[in-house]
Amino acid sequence: MGTRRIIAQYPWAKAPLIVSAPMRQIALSELATEVSLAGGLGFIGSGSDQSDLDQILEDSRRLLSKIEPPLVANHGTLPVGVGFLNWGADLKAALSSIKKYKPAAIWLFAPRHNDNLVEWTQRTRSLTNGATKIWIQVGCVDDAMDVVKSCKPDVLIVQGCDAGGHGLNQSASIISLLPEVSSGLGTLVESGELKAAEYPILIATGGIVEGRGVAAALALGADGVCMGTRYLASHEANLSKGYKDEIIKRHNGGKCTVRSSIYDQLRGTTDWPKEYGGRGVINQSYHDAMAGIDWTENKSKYAEAVKAGRLLSGLS
Amino acid sequence: MGTRRIIAQYPWAKAPLIVSAPMRQIALSELATEVSLAGGLGFIGSGSDQSDLDQILEDSRRLLSKIEPPLVANHGTLPVGVGFLNWGADLKAALSSIKKYKPAAIWLFAPRHNDNLVEWTQRTRSLTNGATKIWIQVGCVDDAMDVVKSCKPDVLIVQGCDAGGHGLNQSASIISLLPEVSSGLGTLVESGELKAAEYPILIATGGIVEGRGVAAALALGADGVCMGTRYLASHEANLSKGYKDEIIKRHNGGKCTVRSSIYDQLRGTTDWPKEYGGRGVINQSYHDAMAGIDWTENKSKYAEAVKAGRLLSGLS
Repeated sequence: MGTRRIIAQYPWAKAPLIVSAPMRQIALSELATEVSLAGGLGFIGSGSDQSDLDQILEDSRRLLSKIEPPLVANHGTLPVGVGFLNWGADLKAALSSIKKYKPAAIWLFAPRHNDNLVEWTQRTRSLTNGATKIWIQVGCVDDAMDVVKSCKPDVLIVQGCDAGGHGLNQSASIISLLPEVSSGLGTLVESGELKAAEYPILIATGGIVEGRGVAAALALGADGVCMGTRYLASHEANLSKGYKDEIIKRHNGGKCTVRSSIYDQLRGTTDWPKEYGGRGVINQSYHDAMAGIDWTENKSKYAEAVKAGRLLSGLS
Repeated sequence: MGTRRIIAQYPWAKAPLIVSAPMRQIALSELATEVSLAGGLGFIGSGSDQSDLDQILEDSRRLLSKIEPPLVANHGTLPVGVGFLNWGADLKAALSSIKKYKPAAIWLFAPRHNDNLVEWTQRTRSLTNGATKIWIQVGCVDDAMDVVKSCKPDVLIVQGCDAGGHGLNQSASIISLLPEVSSGLGTLVESGELKAAEYPILIATGGIVEGRGVAAALALGADGVCMGTRYLASHEANLSKGYKDEIIKRHNGGKCTVRSSIYDQLRGTTDWPKEYGGRGVINQSYHDAMAGIDWTENKSKYAEAVKAGRLLSGLS
């Protein structure tokens, strides 16, 4: 069922649907368009700042216009998506870009309150007459139930705790989470709170890097998968070569990285709602924070390390 | 391949192999034997105290002796396993019980140093002439490589971060971990450090509670799965009815539970190596600990709550 609906919404896509995550500052026109051209759906990471979104969408349109034959998207939409960080994104600016470029989908994530998602969903659907599809990312069962009931998203992205980037500090992996969400949504249909036609396409994300993870996600009940970290070392990712080389060198991921709010605090990106953290490579700053050293001291040591080039990037 | 080797070692077992975890004080003769009788392999949780192990094995033998036709196990072994917590288990006492009852397998976990596993493996193999199979549980890639090279276990249990009970505080779920371990072991075979015949049977555990999780684990490269929490509410689990009822009521597991050393500290079970924590339902004590309230105060509040029956059990 999932596949038929995916193809109906994104006619160029191959099954199972492979999606690239809207990574802020990293997933721009190059990465998003290449993923769509390969039969997936690429997302631009617009984050909480929409000032360059028109330019990125213009670049995407230009890159896609060179393809012969062109990708066929529904209702004249642009065959890429745009991801927003709803705790800080500007709805008015976003709608202006959506109107101008009509992306195939928008991806909503991490609002301060779930009500915010209802407004974004309604305004976007109304503006594009439903052509731009609504994707919403959640990291726990209760949020999944809430947003499916209130927004009826076209796609629900279920993010497990292995994910790179940001997610709930307190969460489960898709092994536990996806069946629990899927069964929960099933009860909404049984109880009549959700029509069967409104049951969203389910996209699993978090810790999937190759075929075995994709197969597992499908077994768990997903219709497709999203990957982020997997694309970091690609030519198309907007990251320094040094950073890409480091990514490839890492192994034993569960031990060398951690999801925590500490990296945001170190970098001063403290606008995220408090329940979200970003996954980062465990470094001295993390150990120092766990050992309870003074925050001012820790932040200044971190800033020194960045300045001295001992950390590859503020993006961890 | 896995299935053929599983059947060769545990002739009564059905594919894919379903294993019940050696939960300390919970998985005794009743649970272990019922799981084996159902076509899986049940483990007794002997933990770090072997004083009642002979009795539990005697009970198991008695329960199994009533079955007609009897389960056929290899080399006259008893068709159940025994799990030890290697940071505290008594090798001499364990060997005495193993000699007397010859369980089909022993499960080693959480040593202070991996060298300890080599001694347990060698002594057990020598004592039973290889009849009692060696199962070793790991929670990260490096430990997997270490113990496979040094112990050549018959079975490697790969535990992901969703697991109930104890595991590494810093870990990944099986979605990430199992393919990384499986590929890593493959490189050992390619490099000649491991013979193909020594590649262990892989058992996935952590967050698996029903068929979808089992299918996912197989897709990830496992030969079978182990479940623990799933059995907590069974008739055969040695737990109070109140506790079983609470287990069934829980949902949104990633949000309502956390794996942390805090529960061990609250209960005074502080013998675990510092990198291990137990998963518990998030309670006021946990919030208080995160908020940095004084430990002595927190422990005394916890003890009061247990005494007043506001916590169902010291086992969380």
